[in-house]
Amino acid sequence: MVLFTDFGLLGPYTGQVKAVLQSAAPSVPVIDLFADAPMRNPRSAAYLLAAYALWFPAGTVLLSVVDPGVGGDRAPVIVEADGRWYVGPENGLFEIVMRRAEAAGMAVRSWEIERQPDAPLSASFHGRDLFAPAAARVALGATPPAAAVQEPRPPGAGRRTDWPDDLPEIVYVDHYGNAMTGLRAAALAAEAVFETPGGCRLTRARTFSDVPPGAAFWYENSNGLAEIAVNDGRADAALGLAVGSPVRIV
Amino acid sequence: MVLFTDFGLLGPYTGQVKAVLQSAAPSVPVIDLFADAPMRNPRSAAYLLAAYALWFPAGTVLLSVVDPGVGGDRAPVIVEADGRWYVGPENGLFEIVMRRAEAAGMAVRSWEIERQPDAPLSASFHGRDLFAPAAARVALGATPPAAAVQEPRPPGAGRRTDWPDDLPEIVYVDHYGNAMTGLRAAALAAEAVFETPGGCRLTRARTFSDVPPGAAFWYENSNGLAEIAVNDGRADAALGLAVGSPVRIV
Amino acid sequence: MVLFTDFGLLGPYTGQVKAVLQSAAPSVPVIDLFADAPMRNPRSAAYLLAAYALWFPAGTVLLSVVDPGVGGDRAPVIVEADGRWYVGPENGLFEIVMRRAEAAGMAVRSWEIERQPDAPLSASFHGRDLFAPAAARVALGATPPAAAVQEPRPPGAGRRTDWPDDLPEIVYVDHYGNAMTGLRAAALAAEAVFETPGGCRLTRARTFSDVPPGAAFWYENSNGLAEIAVNDGRADAALGLAVGSPVRIV
Repeated sequence: MVLFTDFGLLGPYTGQVKAVLQSAAPSVPVIDLFADAPMRNPRSAAYLLAAYALWFPAGTVLLSVVDPGVGGDRAPVIVEADGRWYVGPENGLFEIVMRRAEAAGMAVRSWEIERQPDAPLSASFHGRDLFAPAAARVALGATPPAAAVQEPRPPGAGRRTDWPDDLPEIVYVDHYGNAMTGLRAAALAAEAVFETPGGCRLTRARTFSDVPPGAAFWYENSNGLAEIAVNDGRADAALGLAVGSPVRIV
Repeated sequence: MVLFTDFGLLGPYTGQVKAVLQSAAPSVPVIDLFADAPMRNPRSAAYLLAAYALWFPAGTVLLSVVDPGVGGDRAPVIVEADGRWYVGPENGLFEIVMRRAEAAGMAVRSWEIERQPDAPLSASFHGRDLFAPAAARVALGATPPAAAVQEPRPPGAGRRTDWPDDLPEIVYVDHYGNAMTGLRAAALAAEAVFETPGGCRLTRARTFSDVPPGAAFWYENSNGLAEIAVNDGRADAALGLAVGSPVRIV
Repeated sequence: MVLFTDFGLLGPYTGQVKAVLQSAAPSVPVIDLFADAPMRNPRSAAYLLAAYALWFPAGTVLLSVVDPGVGGDRAPVIVEADGRWYVGPENGLFEIVMRRAEAAGMAVRSWEIERQPDAPLSASFHGRDLFAPAAARVALGATPPAAAVQEPRPPGAGRRTDWPDDLPEIVYVDHYGNAMTGLRAAALAAEAVFETPGGCRLTRARTFSDVPPGAAFWYENSNGLAEIAVNDGRADAALGLAVGSPVRIV
């Protein structure tokens, strides 16, 4: 079980989710992948999730919650795509995973999670009360539709067809200040030049140690995303980058 | 085993505590509930702990350490209350848990942890050297008084009878900027209005998606506390709230 | 398995490392010791690691990665010192561990990790792709040289003989604002006085509760380092201390 959320780690949210998982599926190891996915921002998170989910083997369950509309009318869903299982809100978070799996000719299916009649459901924490129990059921093998609590979603439900296949924006700034874009590096020319909002132009390098200390560059990160970095420095501070900053390929 | 501390997660404190627990009780799963409980503030932490401990099943051991007086003369204790076990400093941190259990007619008992003669005891990290080993013993079933290293505490020892039953202050600001009070929402009228120190008046809502983006409100959070929030925003920044900020019910 | 890195916990790095460890060595418990070791600073980190590694039992494997030169030509190594195993970059991070083990007359050996021919190796994340698999092999008992993928390092390779035995600088600022030096307290006189860069002079105390609230002091922390602290306050803010700040013994 892999967690991809904007819950943070210090406070109660990830802990309570893990307590539910521990109780329902004690034999399933849990990996914290992202607890700082773009906060309340399913669109940016969708490109990050699609890049990082691929690294995990087929059959992995990704409990994925970036859910600013919790308590509202977006459907809670289980998605099967690219051989993996995704559990979370139908708010676009799984759009890019689904689209790329479809483009590769792989099966993509989706079911609505129905509330368990005997389980309490808070208005603000479906990660704990709805998504974690469903993810535990899937991890234990009760995949839909055998798990009777789910209904198939109608085709096209909740899709975001207007979102691009790759996103020329910063989608994540890591702990070191490196700024990941929503662009897959494999789709970019080796000589592509990135222009930041502040007008800096960046060429491609292989990795940090290939440029001088303090130099800014872009490179293919360890999960295939085009990432802007500064050797021995913070790209976010040096170049004024944050989640949502546009990047232009010139 | 549930951890409720102000130790943080990045540095060595939680890791060393978990190494002790892993060594002494390898079969006991450990859940990080709060690693950012109100720092050096057992009073605010007491209301937070009482709200979040209730969510765990009877028999749960909560290793709870917010201990600004470490190395001084506060007693290290094991408390039995509401069917759960609490291990930590007798500095008021367990006052609200104990008081509410007593009010519900449940047994409340307390024992002093005695230092193990052969174990090293640092002057500044009783969480690792004293509380974690004691919590591991309790989790493995060696509950007091069978565990001979504990003495019963005299009635009333370390109690904080001057603290209110509910605290009209912010006791925790979460990762999203939501500000939890020490007030149980169930005890408040549906039409109660909160006034912040800055003079903002807030009415009750069911959850985030029931108010417009940017609107501030209060609601019953997923653990029963009255919490101040802003839909799609940060209540702490928007309303100038931090741990200790008073809230007035008008 | 103990993790000592500058990877942070929120983002993908520690999670992907743990996924590798979980897959390769599922029976080996993993402890997060430091995920905020001095960022890109193997020299400061070396003194911190040497103080905290000693606390773990012989045979412990410490996956230790502070690696600003990732992708460059520093060797990836497995080090045996003081009866423990260290896996990470040969950039000085293990200098102090090795030196102190040698001074104590204990065996110190070092092997270069060779890339597994069938495993992908990113240019920027050797923690995941090279060090974690090697650490898992060691934790499972395939210690060098039996594990054929490692070559012994030549004597003296990568050593930093110019670094002092103890470092009179701040090497870590913890979650509370306490500032650890790279000095072992046991080597200092009880009456030693520390002078900070701002000219404050600090005397020794046993622990926090032995000085008045707001008072600054130094003390032997729970792992033997001389640490500068303020009772009920933040030493980093009060005294202007950060990693790298020099401390003078007067």
